[in-house]
Amino acid sequence: MQDISKTLVAQLRFITETDKLKGVERRTKPIGLARRENSAEHSWQAAICAMILAEHADAEVNLLRVLKMLLIHDVVEVDTGDVFHYEKKEHQDLAAREAAAAKRIFELLPDTQAQELLSLWQEFETRHTPDARFAAAVDRLMAYILNRANNGGTWTEYQLTEREVRTRNREMREGSSTLWGWCESVIDEAVQLGHLAGHGISKSDGE
Amino acid sequence: MQDISKTLVAQLRFITETDKLKGVERRTKPIGLARRENSAEHSWQAAICAMILAEHADAEVNLLRVLKMLLIHDVVEVDTGDVFHYEKKEHQDLAAREAAAAKRIFELLPDTQAQELLSLWQEFETRHTPDARFAAAVDRLMAYILNRANNGGTWTEYQLTEREVRTRNREMREGSSTLWGWCESVIDEAVQLGHLAGHGISKSDGE
Repeated sequence: MQDISKTLVAQLRFITETDKLKGVERRTKPIGLARRENSAEHSWQAAICAMILAEHADAEVNLLRVLKMLLIHDVVEVDTGDVFHYEKKEHQDLAAREAAAAKRIFELLPDTQAQELLSLWQEFETRHTPDARFAAAVDRLMAYILNRANNGGTWTEYQLTEREVRTRNREMREGSSTLWGWCESVIDEAVQLGHLAGHGISKSDGE
Repeated sequence: MQDISKTLVAQLRFITETDKLKGVERRTKPIGLARRENSAEHSWQAAICAMILAEHADAEVNLLRVLKMLLIHDVVEVDTGDVFHYEKKEHQDLAAREAAAAKRIFELLPDTQAQELLSLWQEFETRHTPDARFAAAVDRLMAYILNRANNGGTWTEYQLTEREVRTRNREMREGSSTLWGWCESVIDEAVQLGHLAGHGISKSDGE
């Protein structure tokens, strides 16, 4: 290697480190495939969805910022692994471990970029802006699309109930009422098909 | 399903169709993994690279357009499969098959989006704009990063020569002289390490 700037070396180190997301297994499976998907594929699909579905955000969003957030939203899983959405309560130190991972991994980058991406990641996690709320809604939407196409998918495999699915998805409702409306109809359908165990709660039943 | 707009139904159909990219196998392997990567993971990584390396584009680029291009640049492989870069000459009807695939898949979307994405895909393919040239450079860069980290990777596995690698990568040179400079040093290193068979051609030896 010759004449390569420190900036580029740092950037390539980040890209190499985040390549590990291809080996982080999630619970959800790609449509019709026997294997589980990984966090790199998932991140691509979340970005595709944001790009295609941006018009359904409840507030106006900056698509470039949303895409950046979604492309890096799972980077911390290089250190923490993927934690199943419905098991997060069992991992009380998860937020601290994720914050440490974000610091370690984003700080591989040159300072300005490290700050920008760490800040975007924190924004995504806290959902205090319209961009972050829409990004989080899209991230959650993936499971509805894939589980519906996979005859219940992880909902059936892990014997989740209608109540669990309906009440653990506040992120969807905060980002896009249109997409959440579609998800509610998917839940109804999944209950009718026996893919989700119904508990007869009303749709307005809160968290 | 109730009260779901035709627009959203069409968009979800596109997202479901492109999920198949998770099952399209490429030749390159993720760093340190035994399996080959798929086109969905690759598309995520190309987008990450564009986002991180945009400052190295030779001309000023619109990052949002570049990211959109890279997120959808391999969508046609749902129909055509991935064709190894060094075997493209053997597939003379590939361009026509890819164009047909692009039309079929993008036209699943509502008209305005279908036109936008088809046009972006064509722009990426023809490389007539700075955005497309940078996107194409980033797309090609992936192989250098992964093969270098995998002790030669596909270069060694398919017994490619220095000349083949150096002269089949015009896309890199057109989009970013900085990134191409780094790739040239990676080629030099790969020849020294015996990962690429050297043929003693000069660096200025053209196409």
